[in-house]
Amino acid sequence: MLPAPVLDPESEVPLYRQLHGHVRELIGTGRLRPGDRLPSTRDLAGHLGLNRTTVSAAYELLETEGLIRGHVGRGSFVTGSVPSESSGLDWAEVLESWDRGSLPQPAAAPEEMISFATSRPADHLFPIDEFRATCREVVAAEGAAAILQLGSPSGYGPLRDYLIDQGREEGVAGAGDDVVVTNGCQQAMDLIQRVLLRPGDTVLLEDPVYPGAKSVFARAGARVVGVPVGAQGMDLEHLERAIAREKPRLLVVTPNFQNPTGATLPLAARRTILEMVREARVVLVENDIYGALRYEGEPLPTLKQLDDTGDTVLLRSYSKLAFPGLRVGWVTGPHALSGRLAEAKQFTDLHSDQLSQAVLLRFAESGRLAAHRARIVAAGAERLSAVIEACGRYLPDGTRLTRPQGGMNLWVRLPQPLDAGELLARAHQENVSYLPGKYFEVSRHDPGGLRLSFAGLTPEKIRAGVAILGGIFSSELERARASRHFDPAPAMV
Amino acid sequence: MLPAPVLDPESEVPLYRQLHGHVRELIGTGRLRPGDRLPSTRDLAGHLGLNRTTVSAAYELLETEGLIRGHVGRGSFVTGSVPSESSGLDWAEVLESWDRGSLPQPAAAPEEMISFATSRPADHLFPIDEFRATCREVVAAEGAAAILQLGSPSGYGPLRDYLIDQGREEGVAGAGDDVVVTNGCQQAMDLIQRVLLRPGDTVLLEDPVYPGAKSVFARAGARVVGVPVGAQGMDLEHLERAIAREKPRLLVVTPNFQNPTGATLPLAARRTILEMVREARVVLVENDIYGALRYEGEPLPTLKQLDDTGDTVLLRSYSKLAFPGLRVGWVTGPHALSGRLAEAKQFTDLHSDQLSQAVLLRFAESGRLAAHRARIVAAGAERLSAVIEACGRYLPDGTRLTRPQGGMNLWVRLPQPLDAGELLARAHQENVSYLPGKYFEVSRHDPGGLRLSFAGLTPEKIRAGVAILGGIFSSELERARASRHFDPAPAMV
Repeated sequence: MLPAPVLDPESEVPLYRQLHGHVRELIGTGRLRPGDRLPSTRDLAGHLGLNRTTVSAAYELLETEGLIRGHVGRGSFVTGSVPSESSGLDWAEVLESWDRGSLPQPAAAPEEMISFATSRPADHLFPIDEFRATCREVVAAEGAAAILQLGSPSGYGPLRDYLIDQGREEGVAGAGDDVVVTNGCQQAMDLIQRVLLRPGDTVLLEDPVYPGAKSVFARAGARVVGVPVGAQGMDLEHLERAIAREKPRLLVVTPNFQNPTGATLPLAARRTILEMVREARVVLVENDIYGALRYEGEPLPTLKQLDDTGDTVLLRSYSKLAFPGLRVGWVTGPHALSGRLAEAKQFTDLHSDQLSQAVLLRFAESGRLAAHRARIVAAGAERLSAVIEACGRYLPDGTRLTRPQGGMNLWVRLPQPLDAGELLARAHQENVSYLPGKYFEVSRHDPGGLRLSFAGLTPEKIRAGVAILGGIFSSELERARASRHFDPAPAMV
Repeated sequence: MLPAPVLDPESEVPLYRQLHGHVRELIGTGRLRPGDRLPSTRDLAGHLGLNRTTVSAAYELLETEGLIRGHVGRGSFVTGSVPSESSGLDWAEVLESWDRGSLPQPAAAPEEMISFATSRPADHLFPIDEFRATCREVVAAEGAAAILQLGSPSGYGPLRDYLIDQGREEGVAGAGDDVVVTNGCQQAMDLIQRVLLRPGDTVLLEDPVYPGAKSVFARAGARVVGVPVGAQGMDLEHLERAIAREKPRLLVVTPNFQNPTGATLPLAARRTILEMVREARVVLVENDIYGALRYEGEPLPTLKQLDDTGDTVLLRSYSKLAFPGLRVGWVTGPHALSGRLAEAKQFTDLHSDQLSQAVLLRFAESGRLAAHRARIVAAGAERLSAVIEACGRYLPDGTRLTRPQGGMNLWVRLPQPLDAGELLARAHQENVSYLPGKYFEVSRHDPGGLRLSFAGLTPEKIRAGVAILGGIFSSELERARASRHFDPAPAMV
């Protein structure tokens, strides 16, 4: 067994980083040598009283550095040695000083894992034959050579024209708007921060929010402030106070099926937000990545449609609707901003990949996208019912759920004193995964919160997974209540 | 005719921005109205004594803002109106304050233009049938559905494995190295700046250098310092002094067929640079985007191959070699850095497009890439001879040229007092284009410098284009010398 490390849970250095440093030192000092086997994450977690995910994160980092390597079924072995000072740069030192926290990196899930951890469509729903036919048509077309040449930072011309026309028809692109194609919504947010933010500027985000949104602004040096999201979307009173207090430069709102809560912003709230940002001269970014995935209820107009100033910046993408592996999203916004985004796009990566742009254009124009959408909306409705029903049946009394009308995610709040982060290790032991609330927190800590991403699973898997989670949460709740019962609080002195 | 603007050539605001502001004001105050026709760029340039490119740049900006629109053969018309203060955000004001200069935006070239302005392969050399066959094979394959699902920030697994194996075989990837796939080399540099630089850090670049390299670091808030590049690549004495004086964090070197000079760094210089960066603990980034395009002479080992510390960070790409429109490049570097780059990649745009990664992998594995490379190397050799011969024949005495052995670019230095930037407008009038030195300057102003990107043109076009440039430069040189002859310097007083 490894010499036990002294880990400090109160330190600013996360536990996994402390453990990583400890193992790294054992390797550096030769106490662990190439070929040595490390304890399993389960054993070491038990031994040190840590979460298994903490140990996994430390092992992953060591593997990234080439110091250890995991073999399925055999465990992890020391493979490298820590470079001595004289051999070159100390990369850990070069890089460590700039560390600003990590995004969740879900460990590769074993085949039998029921994973609610990723907000993405189901593999088995991909229209692979239609995709094949589309690709064949695109490459057989006469203009195919144009796809191969250097393109425009604003996007592949024919796709851009299509998106502008479609936007005009729908009323989301006015005369003053232009379209810039991006590598999905993530890059759209990154380009927006580059063009609009300076370090120290404040950005208001939904709280909880998709971790990629938080990271992209926080890493740019912006102050990120959360506005609570409930079942009806952003809390407007809170938003009003935050705008007055924080003088934000940017507000990012996901009005439809927000990630992670699944919440939808009512029409009146949309209008109120537009008034607020107009009054305070805040740039409004509308992230509508899930908007096309409504399973029940009537569609609501986008903020962009409601905004008669035309200032709202609308983000959309083909990645949730069609193929996440093809990175094509787009920004619809005022000419002046679009021009600047295209400029930033140019020095970021010149332009988006043109083959995928051409394929998605053909997929849309041929009517295949609309047909596919109808199928995944039907499938999504089934999955949404399944997850809500299963949560009602299996999760312990006192659990609160959002009631999404579309999208891919449901937000669960466990009764006190359950901690979704702590219970994840037990879920992993039973081959179920989810993302606990801590990954989505902006300003508010919510230990009972967790996200269930249901769109990628069959209704059967959803029911089986939620049943397992229900068992874990219920037994833990019983245990906690029992121990509270028999373990009275100390007398106040 | 427009009321003549008062433009100040000494102002810090570039002339095109001043002209833009003037026209914008005319539109804002209603002196120009929707439907009004603007003078042609040629007429307005003549009228105001400006370069035609200055007027074009102002018009482009107005078009970007939706205020005017150009119609081929009919001229430019006012289409929009400047938003009044009450209607929403003033985007010009919101954006103007963050303006940090622009990349060159070559105007769309008319069909008959002979353009030496873009460093890219010739359209007619694209192996379109092989590309079509490759795409058909990729989408017909059993694993095609995996391409469509959300991927890894480090790259599409099969391509990454291939690149690592190939790098190991070639000796550019050691045991401590890993590969991260990026959207071409431009994004590789962007991720590197995100991971390694903090505002105020210094980056040493070749001078002159590709504008994208300068922009990506300068816009990140880095201090960018140039090290002169001659026919033998970076000036090593200058580099040594710059390292001692500037304490840079990063040095970016393009050892093969540097853009814009085409220069190649000799073997001894490669070794010396490695010693220097090792001594000073500077991170060395080797941009080898043109390395596979050698037309004459023996290949030299990369810095990465020569570096026994393994610290060198190597950038490569398929974009110059195969298809620029498919955005696939990769970084080979130490595990610790690669892990961090993948993390940055995730919050930048999640991951690179997987369809193009799969297509390029198949293109390489099938042997089609090697066959295509043999063809474009033969074509490149022809074009290189043509441009060097034509420059020798047509450009005026006193012109100096680099002598590239590969790549896509040749650097020309015109005899004094010629200014390549000023003469560009005349070249455009005769339907020839190039990029003057000012776009490539880092620390050194070189008014006589210009880049001829020859790879995209046939030898015939190259000869015709250089002949036209030769005529312009020679007549201007005669004029300048004559006026100097007849216009004696004033007496010293």
